[in-house]
Amino acid sequence: MTQQKLSDTVPAAPGLQEAAGPVVPTPAALSALRPLGLGQARLRAEGLLGRWRRRNAEDTLPHCVDNLHTAGNIGNLRAAAGESEDEFVGMWFADSDVHKTLEAAAWQLATSPEDDGLRSFVDDTTALLARAQREDGYLNSYFTVVAPQERWAKPDWSHELYCAGHLFQAAVAAARTGVSPDLLPVARRFADLLVERFGPDGVEEVCGHPEVETALAELYRLTGHRPYLDLAQRFLDLRGRGLLGHGRFGPRYYQDHQPVREVREVTGHAVRQLYLLAGMVDVAVETGDLALLDAAERLWADAFRSRTYVTGAHGSRHREEAYGDPYELPSDRAYGETCAAIASFQWNWRLLLATGRARYADEMERVLYNAVAAAVSSDGRHFFYSNPLQLRTGHASSGEEAASRRLPWYSCACCPPNIARLMASLPGYLATADDGGLQIHLYGDASLTAPGGRRVEMRTAYPWQGRIELEVAEAGGDGQAWTLALRVPAWCDTYTVSVGGEPVRVPARDGYVRLTRVWTPGTTVVLDLDMPVRQVTAHPRVDAVRGCVALTRGPLVYCLEQADLPPGTVLEDVRLDPGAEATAARREDLPDIPVVITAGGLVAHAGDSLYTAGARRERTGTPLTLTAVPYFLWGNRSEGPMRVWIPVAAAG
Amino acid sequence: MTQQKLSDTVPAAPGLQEAAGPVVPTPAALSALRPLGLGQARLRAEGLLGRWRRRNAEDTLPHCVDNLHTAGNIGNLRAAAGESEDEFVGMWFADSDVHKTLEAAAWQLATSPEDDGLRSFVDDTTALLARAQREDGYLNSYFTVVAPQERWAKPDWSHELYCAGHLFQAAVAAARTGVSPDLLPVARRFADLLVERFGPDGVEEVCGHPEVETALAELYRLTGHRPYLDLAQRFLDLRGRGLLGHGRFGPRYYQDHQPVREVREVTGHAVRQLYLLAGMVDVAVETGDLALLDAAERLWADAFRSRTYVTGAHGSRHREEAYGDPYELPSDRAYGETCAAIASFQWNWRLLLATGRARYADEMERVLYNAVAAAVSSDGRHFFYSNPLQLRTGHASSGEEAASRRLPWYSCACCPPNIARLMASLPGYLATADDGGLQIHLYGDASLTAPGGRRVEMRTAYPWQGRIELEVAEAGGDGQAWTLALRVPAWCDTYTVSVGGEPVRVPARDGYVRLTRVWTPGTTVVLDLDMPVRQVTAHPRVDAVRGCVALTRGPLVYCLEQADLPPGTVLEDVRLDPGAEATAARREDLPDIPVVITAGGLVAHAGDSLYTAGARRERTGTPLTLTAVPYFLWGNRSEGPMRVWIPVAAAG
Repeated sequence: MTQQKLSDTVPAAPGLQEAAGPVVPTPAALSALRPLGLGQARLRAEGLLGRWRRRNAEDTLPHCVDNLHTAGNIGNLRAAAGESEDEFVGMWFADSDVHKTLEAAAWQLATSPEDDGLRSFVDDTTALLARAQREDGYLNSYFTVVAPQERWAKPDWSHELYCAGHLFQAAVAAARTGVSPDLLPVARRFADLLVERFGPDGVEEVCGHPEVETALAELYRLTGHRPYLDLAQRFLDLRGRGLLGHGRFGPRYYQDHQPVREVREVTGHAVRQLYLLAGMVDVAVETGDLALLDAAERLWADAFRSRTYVTGAHGSRHREEAYGDPYELPSDRAYGETCAAIASFQWNWRLLLATGRARYADEMERVLYNAVAAAVSSDGRHFFYSNPLQLRTGHASSGEEAASRRLPWYSCACCPPNIARLMASLPGYLATADDGGLQIHLYGDASLTAPGGRRVEMRTAYPWQGRIELEVAEAGGDGQAWTLALRVPAWCDTYTVSVGGEPVRVPARDGYVRLTRVWTPGTTVVLDLDMPVRQVTAHPRVDAVRGCVALTRGPLVYCLEQADLPPGTVLEDVRLDPGAEATAARREDLPDIPVVITAGGLVAHAGDSLYTAGARRERTGTPLTLTAVPYFLWGNRSEGPMRVWIPVAAAG
Repeated sequence: MTQQKLSDTVPAAPGLQEAAGPVVPTPAALSALRPLGLGQARLRAEGLLGRWRRRNAEDTLPHCVDNLHTAGNIGNLRAAAGESEDEFVGMWFADSDVHKTLEAAAWQLATSPEDDGLRSFVDDTTALLARAQREDGYLNSYFTVVAPQERWAKPDWSHELYCAGHLFQAAVAAARTGVSPDLLPVARRFADLLVERFGPDGVEEVCGHPEVETALAELYRLTGHRPYLDLAQRFLDLRGRGLLGHGRFGPRYYQDHQPVREVREVTGHAVRQLYLLAGMVDVAVETGDLALLDAAERLWADAFRSRTYVTGAHGSRHREEAYGDPYELPSDRAYGETCAAIASFQWNWRLLLATGRARYADEMERVLYNAVAAAVSSDGRHFFYSNPLQLRTGHASSGEEAASRRLPWYSCACCPPNIARLMASLPGYLATADDGGLQIHLYGDASLTAPGGRRVEMRTAYPWQGRIELEVAEAGGDGQAWTLALRVPAWCDTYTVSVGGEPVRVPARDGYVRLTRVWTPGTTVVLDLDMPVRQVTAHPRVDAVRGCVALTRGPLVYCLEQADLPPGTVLEDVRLDPGAEATAARREDLPDIPVVITAGGLVAHAGDSLYTAGARRERTGTPLTLTAVPYFLWGNRSEGPMRVWIPVAAAG
C-alpha cells in the first residue's frame, strides 16, 4: 500500500482520502478544493445517481468485460504475450478499451470488493498486460503483433501514447483505491520508457490524440516521480511547433496550430481538444503555471459561450468529429460524441478543483444529466456514440456514426468503457473539501465525509425534486466552526434554506450558499430549489434553433418523441403554443419517468413546396397536448424521431 | 466525319445538328425534345452567359490545362506511356481531370477553331492517351504505373470505370463536334474491353462511382454500337444486389442498397447519386424503359421537395459528401459540391429532353445561376469545391473542404474541369427543337437555329432584366406554322408577351408560352417577365432557416456580405426589417454588379449568454440599409462572412 500516495489536487478521478497529502507543494491560488475519495463519498442506490452507478456495476461493466473478450481486445493482448496465434482484431488502439474498463473496475471494486467476477477480470487482465509488455517496457498489442516496425513512426495517428495514458490511469485507479498494486509497476515501466524516449534528452514528438498528459500528471501525483510531470509539461510545450497535422487533417484538427498558452478558441477533434485541456489544468495546478490555467479558462469561455449544446454535448461536426465555428450548433447533425461529454465533465471537474468556481460544477451537472446520461440505455447495455438533439422523420441511420438507436457495441468502442469509468467513479464528484469545510456540488442520495470527521448525510429525490435534506451526522472532533457550502445551480432563480427547521436568509455567493457555524451532530439543513419548467432560448446567432425553445426542469433537458404523438403526426410539424403553460406532470402510463412536462401544442401544415415567395402561412390544425420526456431517456421505447428544440407557433 | 453520328435524344451535352438522326428508334413517349448543337445555338459575348463562356475559354480552360501539367496529371500519363520515370502524383483518379478538360476543350473548339493552344492540348493529349493505353485497351495511369496488380480489384473505390466514362465523354465531344476523330478509337478500345469483362458473359461488378453509365449511353448514341448501351443498362441492373459498400461506407453511400427501379429516396454521396440518375434517364430513353424513367422522376421529386438548397445546390453533409435526411439543409455546413450542382444540371437536362416538363428547366436555371456560377471566381481562375449558403463570423477555414475563399486548384480537382466542360457547352442548353418548333428554356444573348432553317435571334439583359426580345430571323422554308415556346420561369408571376409590337394574351401552359403561327422573317416577339424582389421562405421543416427569408430576383439568389456592412457590425446580428420594402437598385460603387437589392435592416443585440430561460428580448440598435449582392458573386471582394438566409426581426 506504500504506492498509494495521493495528491489532494485534481485527480483525474477521486482518490482515497486516507492516503497521504499532496506530493508536491501546490500554489495556494491554484488549490481551491480537494476531492473526497470513494471511501468518503458514498452514493446510496435509492437516488438516480446511485441507481446509475448500480446499473453500471451490474450491467455496463460486465457487458464491457464480455465485449472485450468477444470483440477481440483480450485476444489481441494474448497474441502480444505470445500466447495466441489469432489475428489482431479491431482498431489499432483497441488496448485502450481494456485499460478504460480496468480503470472502471478499480473504481467499482473500491466500494464493491465482494464482486468476484470483477476482481478476476482485474487480476487476470493485469497479469496478461504484464505478460504482453515488451522487455523495454513498451506495451501495445497492435504495434507488437501487427506492425512492430511502425512503433513510434506515426505520431499523428498511432494513438500509442493515448493507449499508454489510459493504462496509466487504470494503474493509478487500481493503486489509489487499493484494489490492486500490480498494474502500477507495468505502467511505470512503460512510463519510464516514455521519459527516456520523449523526455528532455529525447525526441521532440507528441501524440496526435492527447490523453497521456493528464495521465502522466496523475501518475506523478500517485508516485511523486517528477519526470512524469515534466514529461506531461513537455508534451504541452511542444504543441504549436508543427509536429502534427501534415496530412489531410491539418494542425487545427490536432490542436497543434498554436502554442497551448496562446490559443484562443477550441478547435478540431473535440475529444482530443478536451483531453488536452484536462491535461493543461493538471499541469498548471502541479507546476503553478498560471498562464496555462488562464489559457484553459479562456478556452472554456470560448467553448461554453458559443460551442456547447444545451445538453452539454460538444462537437458540432460529424466530419472530423470536430468543433464547429462559433454558434454552429445544429441539432440534427450534432455530433456530441459521448467521449467528448465525458471529457468535458473531467475538464470542468479539474477547473472546479483548481478555482472553486461554480460555473464549472454547473457544466458538470448539465453534461452529466443530459449528454452523458443519454448515451447509455436504460438497460445499461446499449450506447450512443454521437448524441444528436434531433432525429428527423425519415432519418436514414448510417450505422455507428449516426445511429437511430443505441447499439450494444462499436467497432470503435471508445465510448462504452468511458461511460463505465465515469459512472464507477461518480460518487467522488459530488463534493469537495477545503480547510474551511465541505462543498457539495452535485446532489444525490449520499453520505459525505470531509477530513476531520465531518460527515453529512444527504437525502433527496433530485433531479426530480429540488428539495435536498442534509444532516450533519458528525460535526468533526475539533469543535471549530466550518462551512457547509451548497451549490445553487445557475438554472435556479429562487430557493429556500433552513437550518434545524428554521428558515435562514443566506444569499448565494459565487454560486454557493455558505453556512458557517459550529455544527452539532444531528443538525438538519434543507435546501429547496425551485424547479419550475423553463422555456430556454438560445442566442440568436445559433441559427439552427431560431424560433424554438427547449423545455427544461432543474438540470434536465426534455425532448419530444414520436412515441408520445398521436399516430400520423409528423414531429417536425409540431409547434409549441406560446400561450399555453408548460408544467411538470406525472403520466401513469410512463411509470419509469417520474416527471414529464406537458405543454399546449399545435400541428402546423405548410404545404409541399420547399421554397415559396412571401410569408408562408402555416395552417394550424387540432391543438394537442405535448408530452416531453427527459432527454436522457429518449430512444428507450420505440425507435423514432425526437427533438429537443421545439418551434414556437407564430403568435396571433 | 463518318463517326459523327448523333442521337437527337438526350446527349450528355449538345451535339452538332448536322449529324445523322437517331441511331436507334426511340419510343415517341420518351423523346419529347431534341437538343440543338453548338453550331445551332450561339451565345454572343454581350450577355452574362456569353461572358461566362468567354471567360471559361480565356481563363478557366487555359488555367485547367496549366494545372494538369503542374499538378502532375499529364506526367502520370507520360509515366503510363513509359516516357517518364516520375512518380505518380495526386489522386488515383487524376486521369479524369484530363478527360474532363479534353471534353471542355472539344466543346470550346467547336466554336473557337482558331484557338491553337487549345487545339494543341487536344491533339497532344489525345496522342498521349493513345500511347498510355495498354495493349488490351485498358487506360488508367494509376493502375498502370502504381498498382497494376490491383486492376479491377477494388470496385468500391478504384474509380476505374468513372475515369473510363469521362474518357468516353471526351471522345464523344471531340468526335461529335468534329474537333478530332482520334480520341474515339482509344475510347472504343477501352469500351470494348469493358464489354468483354463486364458484359453479359463477364463478371458481375459495378463501379463505386457512377459516370460510365451515362458515358456508355453517349458512346452508343455516337457509334450505334448496341453493346455499349447494354452494358450501361447492365451496370444499372446490377445495383441493389450487394456488390458495393461492405466497408465503412455502407451500401446507401453507393446507391447500392436497393435496385434502381425501387429506390424512393436520394441517398449517399451526392455526385454519385446524381451521375447515376443521369445514366438512368439515358438508358430509360434509349431502351424505352418507362419504369426506369419513373424511378428517376420519383427521385427527382424527393430531391427537389426536401433536399435541395435554394441555390440549387445538393448535398447537406460534409461527412461522406452526402445527401442528408429530408429537410436537413443547413446553410453553414451546406456541402453543395460544385460537381453535384453540375450533375444536377445535367440530370435535369436529360429529364427535360425526355419529358419536356418546364420544372426541369426551372431547376437547370436555378442551379446554373447560383450554385454553379458561384463556384468560379470573377477571374475564372479560382474555384469553390463546397458551396455553403453561409460563412460565419470566425469561420475557421479547413482547407479544401470548407474554404473561406475560392482556391486556384485542389488536390482532388474534380470541380474546376467540370465547370469548364459545362461552361464550354453552355449554348447547347438554351433551347431545344421538336417537329412542331423551337423551345427556349434559358434566356441569353444568342442566336438559335432549329431544324428546317428556323432561326431566332434573342437579345436580352437577362438575368438583370426580364425583357427578352426575339426576332424570327428566318422562318424556315416550308411555309408551315410552327410553335415558338418560351419558358415562363416558376419564379415569375406576371409577364407580358407581344408579337410584332402587338400585345398578345397567351396564358402559359405547363410552364411555356406557346406561340403558333406561320412566321414571317423579321417578326419580333417580346417576352417581358416581371422581376420584382422576392422574399422567399423555406418549408418550416427546414429548421436551419426558420424565421429567415432569402432575397431573390429573377433566377438570382442574393446574399449579404460583410463587405457591405458598417465596420464593427457582426453579420449574424443583422435582421431584415419586416416592414421595409426590398428593392432592386444600382450602386455606383459596385460597378461590376448590375443589380443589387437594398432592404431595411436592423442590428440586434442579444447579450452574451448562450442559453437563457424565457423569451430573449433582442434589443435592436440603429437601423441600417442592407445591400444584398448576387450569391454567385460572393467572395470576389474581401474574404469574410456571408449569408443567404436573413433573419427577420420580430414584429412589434
